[in-house]
Amino acid sequence: MTVELIPVDGIPEVKAGDVLAELIAAAADLRTGDVVVVTQKIVSKAENRLEPLDHHDLAARRALVERESVRILRRRGDLIISETSHGFVCANAGIDLSNLPGEDAALLLPEDPDGSARALRAGIEAARGVRPAVVLSDSFGRAWRMGQVDVAIGAAGLLVLDDWRGRSDAHGRELRATVAAMGDAVAAMADLARSKDAGEPAVLVRGLERFVTPEDGPGAAPLTRPKPDDLFR
Amino acid sequence: MTVELIPVDGIPEVKAGDVLAELIAAAADLRTGDVVVVTQKIVSKAENRLEPLDHHDLAARRALVERESVRILRRRGDLIISETSHGFVCANAGIDLSNLPGEDAALLLPEDPDGSARALRAGIEAARGVRPAVVLSDSFGRAWRMGQVDVAIGAAGLLVLDDWRGRSDAHGRELRATVAAMGDAVAAMADLARSKDAGEPAVLVRGLERFVTPEDGPGAAPLTRPKPDDLFR
Repeated sequence: MTVELIPVDGIPEVKAGDVLAELIAAAADLRTGDVVVVTQKIVSKAENRLEPLDHHDLAARRALVERESVRILRRRGDLIISETSHGFVCANAGIDLSNLPGEDAALLLPEDPDGSARALRAGIEAARGVRPAVVLSDSFGRAWRMGQVDVAIGAAGLLVLDDWRGRSDAHGRELRATVAAMGDAVAAMADLARSKDAGEPAVLVRGLERFVTPEDGPGAAPLTRPKPDDLFR
Repeated sequence: MTVELIPVDGIPEVKAGDVLAELIAAAADLRTGDVVVVTQKIVSKAENRLEPLDHHDLAARRALVERESVRILRRRGDLIISETSHGFVCANAGIDLSNLPGEDAALLLPEDPDGSARALRAGIEAARGVRPAVVLSDSFGRAWRMGQVDVAIGAAGLLVLDDWRGRSDAHGRELRATVAAMGDAVAAMADLARSKDAGEPAVLVRGLERFVTPEDGPGAAPLTRPKPDDLFR
């Protein structure tokens, strides 16, 4: 089945208090069964997750990262790899300093990204009468591999883990240990259709209807590996 | 820009010695500027990377994983997380036991996945006169996150890391630490268009022409984090 990625043009610069669902619904031809992938940055802006911070005050930057972390995994120079209150392991607690209007503020992750995704989905349904799945994406680094890929930090209405365990392979034998992280793959994919300097903070993905659910479901939370199960934390 | 994922139907069951480039070129309407993502499994099969192994002999399985590893990172039960000779950190040295005709063999990773990708690209060009980028994909687990995503273990003709450092954000300030792992995102994305039980071992990605290069380039190697730079190895 063919899958199509369509960047959503025409979303204006988002500011605190904007009703993001209406901006997205107005800019994109959304349908039930689509997945709309929205960058964390515009969600955090709409939710006014700005925090005063002088970008050049390294001690204050470090203190903010530590405040937003529940556990520090590694430090190297200015870089801190930590676990956030949401359970995400990422650099600098996911705090963003780029693409902000000044150098006196930092942008924090949404407090409840799955809640943000559910609210966006409900808002889009209210505005347009359609019910696409919603994914909130953010760029995370990885252990062992270079570069960042986008992952799903929030979701509503998407099967984020596709569990193949117990199903059979083409030869009738059980597939081993195959759980596909659909949610993260959708986020990674959406990022490819965006041009980072063109200000396209949302991408519409069409052709994944089989992973879109009427109910909002558990969000992106199942993508976070619980600490007892984690060999690298 | 719209990106399209098209699963390649009609590739027959691949066996040792098959000329994979011709099978893919015959099954897909490839163009220069496309990216064709091919699963490691059919490349390993064509390259006869089968190794005798009784699937039920756990000691022999463990010994094979250890033989294919240069460094063991973690063990839990039957699971071994290790670094392969290629530098990949993954479960069980990337050795595959599913989707094989019997229970008496294991399928190893290609010896030189970037070389395999270059050979595929050259073979497709010889067969069809077009020069799409080629990515070899495999499903890897991740630290900190549940489920597997496909990553690029080999590549030819694709910019696998898109380095934004030094470029400016929309407000004219330098973007920090932004290197997008394009190659891995392309692999992750392609997996979404496949149905694992439908036997679609290749996916054509159209719309990423700006990341496709005439020269084969350094392959997927730049996606592997060098050990001295790795905080989790």
